[in-house]
Formats: sequence, C-alpha cells, structure tokens
Amino acid sequence: MKLEHYTNVPLEDVVMEGAKGAKIRWLIARKDGAPNFATRMFEVDPGGHTPFHSHSWEHQNYILEGEGALVTENGDKPFKPGDVIFVPPLMKHSYKNTGDSLMRFLCIIPIEQPTPVKKKNVNPFAKGVANNC
Amino acid sequence: MKLEHYTNVPLEDVVMEGAKGAKIRWLIARKDGAPNFATRMFEVDPGGHTPFHSHSWEHQNYILEGEGALVTENGDKPFKPGDVIFVPPLMKHSYKNTGDSLMRFLCIIPIEQPTPVKKKNVNPFAKGVANNC
Repeated sequence: MKLEHYTNVPLEDVVMEGAKGAKIRWLIARKDGAPNFATRMFEVDPGGHTPFHSHSWEHQNYILEGEGALVTENGDKPFKPGDVIFVPPLMKHSYKNTGDSLMRFLCIIPIEQPTPVKKKNVNPFAKGVANNC
Repeated sequence: MKLEHYTNVPLEDVVMEGAKGAKIRWLIARKDGAPNFATRMFEVDPGGHTPFHSHSWEHQNYILEGEGALVTENGDKPFKPGDVIFVPPLMKHSYKNTGDSLMRFLCIIPIEQPTPVKKKNVNPFAKGVANNC
C-alpha cells in the first residue's frame, strides 16, 4: 500500500529530444509494486511541451491545472482542468502549455510485461455490473 | 482518441452492497477502445463510502476534492486532494467521505483481458530512461 502527497514524489526533468520545460513524477509504478500500469504526473512550464511522437502504447490523461493543447496530426485540441483524454497506440501526440501558468496532468501507461490478476468475482466491463469498486 | 470534460461522462449510482452515497463515472474504458486499463471517477457524498471489500486486482487513486479516509484492516488512513494511493490486489479497502462536502477521486483498474502492446522503442521502467512520454 502507498498513500502519499504527490509533492513527495521526486520531480524529474523530461530529457527526451523534443521536450521543453517538461518534468515528470512517477506517482505509482513498478517501484511501488504496481503490476499492470503506472500513473505519472507531468508538469509543463508556460511555452513548454512534451515531444511530438508516437509509440506502441496508449495514454490516459486527466488534466489537473493550467491551459494546454493536445497536438495531433489533425491540429491542436485545446484542453482545460477536468478534461479526460485517451490517446490510442500509435497516434502522434504532444501536450503543450498554451497558458501563462504551470500545466499539470496525469498520464497513465501500461507496464510492458503486465501481471494481470484474473477477476473471478466481478467483470466490471460486462453490462449492468459496472459498479465494482 | 477521446477528449472530453468529466462532467459529460454519465454519473451512475454505485449499487453494490455496502456502498452508500457513492457514484461513478467510467471516464475511459473498453467502450472507448482502452486496451489495458480503465480510468473511473468516484463521487461520494458526505457520510458516504464505497464497500469495504477486497478483490484480485489493484487500484491506483488520485484524490481530486474533499476529505476522506482509506479504511483498511489496520485502521483508517486520512487523505486529502493531491494524495496518491496504491491499493494492492487482495487488500481490504473502502473509501469514505469524512468531510462535509463532496469527495471526488480517480480510480484506475486493469482490464480483465488486457491486450498490451510491446514497447519496442523505450522501456520506461529501465533505470535512466524513465522519461518517456
């Protein structure tokens, strides 16, 4: 079990080519025993962005703070706090800060070699039993 | 791709035994093409809680609003906005609202039969290359 404020998780520079003014916190990952996916937080300065690239895994995002845009091959899609984003595998994307304050968002990715546990008691994706907690 | 404000995602009652004043939004799930995990938002009224139970899959949480506690077999662990929580498989847990306003948090779970994509270009969990976006 882990219960910690996000500010206690180290803030690391994103050093990939194409990134500018972007930092990351690995909130919950393999290091914490997570078997299937990892939750990270990105913090992007005004004028900053993550690389415009694609990869073989998906992203799920929740926008926490600031104003930004998802850059895609079909143009920029503005986002704001409370927005949720799904970026499917292989789609080119970048997250850029279009505001004048810090932009913060969550970004969840699958772990390369997941160890999923069989759900014997409830299938949350079956119709009508989607309320498992 | 999906980009939507969370308030546009249906808010459904949590009807499981042991739940009280708890609702759920399936922000990103199988219905959206998510291959490996699902991001949900729980909204719990003051005095409300999710069931105290365990299951074979893990939870990853991010607290968005309100005051609450993670109920465990080792006592209650208070949480506040900005806290991150990892509940490993098989650990008994409940989320209860201990404040006088709405409590909102994200809860991410694995999909029963994931279809992970091999990460050929970057292994984000290898030391030193943890900055993939």
